[in-house]
Amino acid sequence: MTPIEIALEEARAAALRGEVPVGAVLTAPDGTVLARAGNEVEARRDAAAHAEMLVLRDAAARLGSPRLVGCTLTVTLEPCPMCAQAASFFRVARVVFGAYDPKGGGVDHGARIFAAPSCHHVPEVVGGVREAECAALLKDFFSARR
Amino acid sequence: MTPIEIALEEARAAALRGEVPVGAVLTAPDGTVLARAGNEVEARRDAAAHAEMLVLRDAAARLGSPRLVGCTLTVTLEPCPMCAQAASFFRVARVVFGAYDPKGGGVDHGARIFAAPSCHHVPEVVGGVREAECAALLKDFFSARR
Repeated sequence: MTPIEIALEEARAAALRGEVPVGAVLTAPDGTVLARAGNEVEARRDAAAHAEMLVLRDAAARLGSPRLVGCTLTVTLEPCPMCAQAASFFRVARVVFGAYDPKGGGVDHGARIFAAPSCHHVPEVVGGVREAECAALLKDFFSARR
Repeated sequence: MTPIEIALEEARAAALRGEVPVGAVLTAPDGTVLARAGNEVEARRDAAAHAEMLVLRDAAARLGSPRLVGCTLTVTLEPCPMCAQAASFFRVARVVFGAYDPKGGGVDHGARIFAAPSCHHVPEVVGGVREAECAALLKDFFSARR
């Protein structure tokens, strides 16, 4: 499976748990999966338990370093400002995401964290990967809840 | 002790551990201290272990809820975009901080997280509390390291 497929799998699993369906995976430069997770905001009662934060922290714990040099964060949704800033702090080389998030996103929208002059580490960004599938998961989840 | 005094105490303790001296405290509406912490980026090898993130998550765990309604986050330094966005997600009522951070701050500088139209929950913000002491701790720490 490709990273975005793993992230999609995590997003689907999150939906089944009643979590907003966003999934993420952190891969090493050689493609090894260091961490994978879906949203766990409800389960952990932790508003910061976005999938991205979980994989960044898990991967750093696994490597024993807060610097994920050369690593890639792949996530089904454009990261929010919190997660985008965290990705920069953890020094990931690339951020790959699926659906764009005009309302909550902080990469290509809103705060545009990586575009700030004060952003010390700016990862390469690739958006729109498997966009339709990633967005459909979210759309289905929210329409089923209304 | 007032919340900023507790935060200063945590910041001083962080400096002694070799961490960037920033401290934070999370107080309930009645002033009860729900969580207090200093930076633990080095100790936890977690680039997201800023004092604010730690107290937000600890307080939510203690209350059993990701919504810290009516609570106040007090921190010695202007929160970065990650922590400011987290404070909004956790729905804190107020953010009180000491020193301003023109380079890394995300409240009155840079991303100005709470000013974004997409920011759903905007806390009241009070900056510059015991500013000189809070800033001096950071200045001393970094000048000693150079």
